[in-house]
Amino acid sequence: MAQNYQALAAEGEIGVASLYEAAGKIGALPSAIKPLTPNFRLFGPAFPVQSPPADNLWLHRAIYEAEPGDILIVHVGDHYEAGYWGEVMTTAALSRKLGGLVIDGGVRDSQRLVEVGFPVFSRTICIRGTAKDPKGEGSLGAPVRFGDVVVHRGDLVVGDADGVVIIPAEVAEEFVKKAHAREAHEAQVMEKLRNGERTLDLFNLK
Amino acid sequence: MAQNYQALAAEGEIGVASLYEAAGKIGALPSAIKPLTPNFRLFGPAFPVQSPPADNLWLHRAIYEAEPGDILIVHVGDHYEAGYWGEVMTTAALSRKLGGLVIDGGVRDSQRLVEVGFPVFSRTICIRGTAKDPKGEGSLGAPVRFGDVVVHRGDLVVGDADGVVIIPAEVAEEFVKKAHAREAHEAQVMEKLRNGERTLDLFNLK
Amino acid sequence: MAQNYQALAAEGEIGVASLYEAAGKIGALPSAIKPLTPNFRLFGPAFPVQSPPADNLWLHRAIYEAEPGDILIVHVGDHYEAGYWGEVMTTAALSRKLGGLVIDGGVRDSQRLVEVGFPVFSRTICIRGTAKDPKGEGSLGAPVRFGDVVVHRGDLVVGDADGVVIIPAEVAEEFVKKAHAREAHEAQVMEKLRNGERTLDLFNLK
Amino acid sequence: MAQNYQALAAEGEIGVASLYEAAGKIGALPSAIKPLTPNFRLFGPAFPVQSPPADNLWLHRAIYEAEPGDILIVHVGDHYEAGYWGEVMTTAALSRKLGGLVIDGGVRDSQRLVEVGFPVFSRTICIRGTAKDPKGEGSLGAPVRFGDVVVHRGDLVVGDADGVVIIPAEVAEEFVKKAHAREAHEAQVMEKLRNGERTLDLFNLK
Amino acid sequence: MAQNYQALAAEGEIGVASLYEAAGKIGALPSAIKPLTPNFRLFGPAFPVQSPPADNLWLHRAIYEAEPGDILIVHVGDHYEAGYWGEVMTTAALSRKLGGLVIDGGVRDSQRLVEVGFPVFSRTICIRGTAKDPKGEGSLGAPVRFGDVVVHRGDLVVGDADGVVIIPAEVAEEFVKKAHAREAHEAQVMEKLRNGERTLDLFNLK
Amino acid sequence: MAQNYQALAAEGEIGVASLYEAAGKIGALPSAIKPLTPNFRLFGPAFPVQSPPADNLWLHRAIYEAEPGDILIVHVGDHYEAGYWGEVMTTAALSRKLGGLVIDGGVRDSQRLVEVGFPVFSRTICIRGTAKDPKGEGSLGAPVRFGDVVVHRGDLVVGDADGVVIIPAEVAEEFVKKAHAREAHEAQVMEKLRNGERTLDLFNLK
Repeated sequence: MAQNYQALAAEGEIGVASLYEAAGKIGALPSAIKPLTPNFRLFGPAFPVQSPPADNLWLHRAIYEAEPGDILIVHVGDHYEAGYWGEVMTTAALSRKLGGLVIDGGVRDSQRLVEVGFPVFSRTICIRGTAKDPKGEGSLGAPVRFGDVVVHRGDLVVGDADGVVIIPAEVAEEFVKKAHAREAHEAQVMEKLRNGERTLDLFNLK
Repeated sequence: MAQNYQALAAEGEIGVASLYEAAGKIGALPSAIKPLTPNFRLFGPAFPVQSPPADNLWLHRAIYEAEPGDILIVHVGDHYEAGYWGEVMTTAALSRKLGGLVIDGGVRDSQRLVEVGFPVFSRTICIRGTAKDPKGEGSLGAPVRFGDVVVHRGDLVVGDADGVVIIPAEVAEEFVKKAHAREAHEAQVMEKLRNGERTLDLFNLK
Repeated sequence: MAQNYQALAAEGEIGVASLYEAAGKIGALPSAIKPLTPNFRLFGPAFPVQSPPADNLWLHRAIYEAEPGDILIVHVGDHYEAGYWGEVMTTAALSRKLGGLVIDGGVRDSQRLVEVGFPVFSRTICIRGTAKDPKGEGSLGAPVRFGDVVVHRGDLVVGDADGVVIIPAEVAEEFVKKAHAREAHEAQVMEKLRNGERTLDLFNLK
Repeated sequence: MAQNYQALAAEGEIGVASLYEAAGKIGALPSAIKPLTPNFRLFGPAFPVQSPPADNLWLHRAIYEAEPGDILIVHVGDHYEAGYWGEVMTTAALSRKLGGLVIDGGVRDSQRLVEVGFPVFSRTICIRGTAKDPKGEGSLGAPVRFGDVVVHRGDLVVGDADGVVIIPAEVAEEFVKKAHAREAHEAQVMEKLRNGERTLDLFNLK
Repeated sequence: MAQNYQALAAEGEIGVASLYEAAGKIGALPSAIKPLTPNFRLFGPAFPVQSPPADNLWLHRAIYEAEPGDILIVHVGDHYEAGYWGEVMTTAALSRKLGGLVIDGGVRDSQRLVEVGFPVFSRTICIRGTAKDPKGEGSLGAPVRFGDVVVHRGDLVVGDADGVVIIPAEVAEEFVKKAHAREAHEAQVMEKLRNGERTLDLFNLK
Repeated sequence: MAQNYQALAAEGEIGVASLYEAAGKIGALPSAIKPLTPNFRLFGPAFPVQSPPADNLWLHRAIYEAEPGDILIVHVGDHYEAGYWGEVMTTAALSRKLGGLVIDGGVRDSQRLVEVGFPVFSRTICIRGTAKDPKGEGSLGAPVRFGDVVVHRGDLVVGDADGVVIIPAEVAEEFVKKAHAREAHEAQVMEKLRNGERTLDLFNLK
């Protein structure tokens, strides 16, 4: 599956908002989840992780359960104020050739993560530490919910400065192609706008 | 009116905080509204827009109702989690020579907006889409309230990294001049501080 | 005491998260307090200030009560939406050779503060002004609480892009050294990870 | 118009949730606005009031601009933490035979208001006082927006323990009758449920 | 399993806080979830339900999948502002002899639910409606997470005015008995306190 | 001092909002702090307590440091989600003849506290437990800040369904008398309103 995504990726970069619209307005993760630096990009298969709150043992496990190229998508049990991930784990993830991290919580060593260039998208940057409780309940690779979005293993993850969109694997190719077509069409629309035409007419907004 | 503002603008840049103070502590929009990049600046007449929540039809209309140089000041009915504005609308706004956008909600294609250099000040960056409901109730050019600030068409909008201040048109020239005087005076004060004088004495804070 | 910190500082930069962990997970200020720009750093003795809400008279007083090198740590009575500090006060603080400002509230003239390079860590950037009420109750140098952290005069303040950590003066040297040792050890761990070893084994996470 | 509502009211009490559904899911005010005591009821024409934040002069004016039977629907410029209304104003409103108060902010003398029986629906109970600034901008009787609901003068206001719904005047009679029909139909459905039938079958939820 | 709980229930009422403490400080659901009226009580087996946000189809399904005596424990995908449950569903649940409802979202027809006496614990009371999307992803009887608490089918649910506690089925009997012992011991402690002894001595708090 | 307050109390009940206004709009504690039941009343001297977050050891100490009649006013280090106080501590407080509890956090055994009639004003009701860390930093009887209000030992505490107001001891008698006068005057105003006079005229609101 990841290979399909590499082929798809090779077709050129698409904006997250374009893909969201082309896919029928689905898959937007909470808007509070943003890249540590605006030029981070994500494009690859999802590896969903459910973590207990304020604990990062399941993230360590995830680094070794995920396949190269996988992007960890981590739900942290609604406890945002902790740094679940830092430089050491990033080094491990790079060694495992993972594709990135999306976490609905905090990370730390933030400037080092930016310098290393591992694409991390998080809700916050937080110094506070986590436990590693072996009795904590979590999951690796099983579906995880973020509000109205349920992430399944292998779903396509796309991220840019606008945030993160998740597209089900079985329709990923279709919607990425649609997104490219949409962007090509928008380029034409914008050319017309530059020539004095109006969105009200081009989009029939009377 | 906009021409006055061009003349005023030509007198040199002023800080938003200086203007706010010089004007008697009025006109500060909610502090959550910030530029997409810290070097964006706004200085021009306001075109207030009331939009229904999660709908951007009235923003399309506003692009064509506003005059060149106008800055759209958009209230979105208290629904922040949507991307009301993106690259296509920016292109239309540039084609119409609008002066910028201030929106108490979300925008998307954020990196493109930064690259293009159209000054957008927003509360958030959000992927989620909007409707274009022709039955939605909104307004163009009529006064719009943001907490303790009521924005009227033609009021002076000034924005920088600190946020946005709105000054009533009839006192804009007076207060901009006062702000310049204030900044000149503060430059003298700061020179004295560098020479060892104390704010406690200079400001009579005993 | 500040001299000890200069000697400690001369031993090289440490990450805030490393110090927090080395110190036994203590001293993290609220994660909402962040530097105005990610490359700001703090390392020096704390001068705690309790300010009444929406008033900055006690900050003026603090500039002249604190010693050169001191870092002001300001609690603002839970009123965040005000700009307690700007360019003039920064100039005064630089003239007094203060080491920086940490404030659980807002500042303004933010771009000027970045340009001048005075390290300011704040919760928000806010245009709205403050009073200077001579009857307001505050304190200078006395202990101030931020949630689970009580800051005493002379405690070590360390800040970077992750936020701010406060270490009691009497254990500061010990924990900074531990943090350096921890970072040295982590460098070895990361080298092993790059060579294919696993965090699960290195940290005994079975 | 109010007389129509009296005739409608005479047809019997309807639940706010039933009316909301019968009207096509429109008109729900923010759910934080609740009655001071669960048995308060509202049924009458709306008199919308826009107040500046932390000021209650326009509420005094509204008491004397509204007609007997009118229910004041007050937007307070997004400043909730103030007591805009208390026992004295309630006495004035009763003397004017107003029908009630809905306010997206705070009230005080709350137990007295409950004892007197004047139906007040508010977001909070708050001791803090307000100003009476004659230069404040507000409006009486003009449309006022609460998120996705725009309240016009004369719209039907219905309130109970669930909160408040606003129905446009021109469709009020139609939707109230539909709501009665809906409640009659639900009574039949509930009778069937008590006899062992299932919602999955009755509502075709397969 | 439910029969065990009936036997346990017959041993007398215990306070939720006592049970939480006796069980080692586990199982407290978010404190925002409270009974519609303070005298509602819950004691019975959990039937966990995962619902998509703003949709109540899975709650209808749950009514018919759960066993008599079961208490529905519903996670609603983090969308609180909707009325997922009302009088009709309560009638169906009573007909199915369910034991109660705990929902991390809104309900409506609130006064009717209080009058009928079906114990509902919810985060809010909200008029806004829900969808019944047959393509929505949810679950019935599978484990559901609320922050640091994972609820499994058959776990013991206990609720009172303080909120809701969930105890794993396999330790429910043990901890309920401990809670009774704790309450008996506390009764003795309180008797001593009434006779002038001090908590500082009785609890060794020097 | 407490005796003065008993004499003052004997002059009759005053509303909290009346006292707040008569005192010049000072002393209102955060509006989220409300009585467990609307008919609880407070009138007596303050005993301020600073507690570390999620710890109640200092509350135990406070019970034995305070004098009979004292009302504990507790700041909990900004951690609201814990039950700092319950039935046992209430029993101890009653045995010590304390006058009540005001806490900017959570309590539990809430229904028992209502039944016993010990006036508790809290921000929330919460099951989660606290620690009793002997190394925690707190204070007993020293001034404690709640936003813009600093509470000193012996200040007058008055509470009712509207919330809590704190009046400095040295002006308590003066302002209570003013509050009575204000209420007497308001009674006359309300009589006039009932006779058809208008607030606009009586308060000169033109």
